Amino acid sequence: MNDIKKNNAPRITLVGAGPGDPELITLKGLKALQGADVVLYDALVGEELLQFIPPNATKVYVGKRSGDHSYSQEVVNRLMVDYALNFGHVVRLKGGDSFVFGRGYEELEFAAAYRIPVTVIPGISSSIGVPGLQHIPVTHRGLSESFWVITGTTSSGEVSHDVYQAAQTKATVVVLMGLKKLKEIVEIFKAAGKDKLPVAIIQKGSTQDEKLVVGNVHNIVDKAQQETITAPAILVFGEVVSLHPSYKSIVKEYASVIGE
Amino acid sequence: MNDIKKNNAPRITLVGAGPGDPELITLKGLKALQGADVVLYDALVGEELLQFIPPNATKVYVGKRSGDHSYSQEVVNRLMVDYALNFGHVVRLKGGDSFVFGRGYEELEFAAAYRIPVTVIPGISSSIGVPGLQHIPVTHRGLSESFWVITGTTSSGEVSHDVYQAAQTKATVVVLMGLKKLKEIVEIFKAAGKDKLPVAIIQKGSTQDEKLVVGNVHNIVDKAQQETITAPAILVFGEVVSLHPSYKSIVKEYASVIGE
Repeated sequence: MNDIKKNNAPRITLVGAGPGDPELITLKGLKALQGADVVLYDALVGEELLQFIPPNATKVYVGKRSGDHSYSQEVVNRLMVDYALNFGHVVRLKGGDSFVFGRGYEELEFAAAYRIPVTVIPGISSSIGVPGLQHIPVTHRGLSESFWVITGTTSSGEVSHDVYQAAQTKATVVVLMGLKKLKEIVEIFKAAGKDKLPVAIIQKGSTQDEKLVVGNVHNIVDKAQQETITAPAILVFGEVVSLHPSYKSIVKEYASVIGE
Repeated sequence: MNDIKKNNAPRITLVGAGPGDPELITLKGLKALQGADVVLYDALVGEELLQFIPPNATKVYVGKRSGDHSYSQEVVNRLMVDYALNFGHVVRLKGGDSFVFGRGYEELEFAAAYRIPVTVIPGISSSIGVPGLQHIPVTHRGLSESFWVITGTTSSGEVSHDVYQAAQTKATVVVLMGLKKLKEIVEIFKAAGKDKLPVAIIQKGSTQDEKLVVGNVHNIVDKAQQETITAPAILVFGEVVSLHPSYKSIVKEYASVIGE
């Protein structure tokens, strides 16, 4: 850390890093990284992105520590402001987009209380980008006029009430951080009479560990187990999943089972 | 156009250009542009992005012609495939993300019929990025566990049935291409008893012509008229809009009108 940095005016840039592939950061996000005095980054941020940070900048990992608790939001807020006051330009690098279940607004609010200016640079949200990379469009004429993105992990630990409502609609339903609740979420769609609705689960989209499972509401839990899908993964419920080439084999398999 | 180009293998890259600011393209999208033989681009793509296209590549505008009809999807599909077969690498550059009401899947399908390989590079969707740039988070603990993105312009010309359902939920509701239907959409929220629900309209987000109007369901139509908001604009209905600094003055104004 260069002592000259201490004279830089405090400011914070919230940067969405995208779903994992380091090249899915925006040009603007990249420039912010290159001009950072300090970078605070999460577990979901691809390691390769860190190469863009100037060598004299400080890199601070604030994600989960191996097998240990993650830093609390309060600690992250505190660190972010302290670094800005002491060293100048802090880039807060977050997976996906900062405002899609990223608690970005809490950080923005905390910084505002110290009158530290914050710039927001959006990131590719996995909710749209990860299905897209698999050639599954979240919207498609004749199949879906909307998409609904819901967290699988609410602050209370329960499945969001929004999932119950979403299961009743024709929207493409994308659930983030929902793999642990997969059985429960699938039961909600079954209760809504959606047994045949196509479902995709995409693990670690845009990275080398990407894995896709395609099925229907009735069989997706078994398929996810067979393929040993692990978090982070996103769930996509909707007719648009039927556009994926691998879905055709699923349809045949399903027809033979139920004799259609 | 260099004759050597004719020997390049045909391939297509669908690139999301983001909401307008040329620096909101991804690094991967930028690299695709730099390696293009032909670029087909839309009206919603910022002109500044075109500077990244190599000088010997062909640029083809397929958006609306001044005061005239836009190219039909069929013509765009046809041009895209013809250019790929004749010149090699076609980059199809679209505003936002190709799969968020971008008809990207139709282009992908058309290319597949000619066995031309297609790579998808996601873009920043205005649905998330544009509110974010205004410091309006689409999700925030205690206010919204989900966001629902709906087109205001369906292929039938009617307001999507999904808007009626969305007005009944606690989701942040983002309507794209909905400005022309603003009155109609607002009536749907009124009918759902949501007169006080905060609403933001953001015109040409991330560009120099960006303009924000904040209000409630009960007054947003008047406010949009007073500020002469024009398309393209996105509509955001939801409690998260109350987080915007300019909302506080709205609350006072509203209280004085209805005597709360």
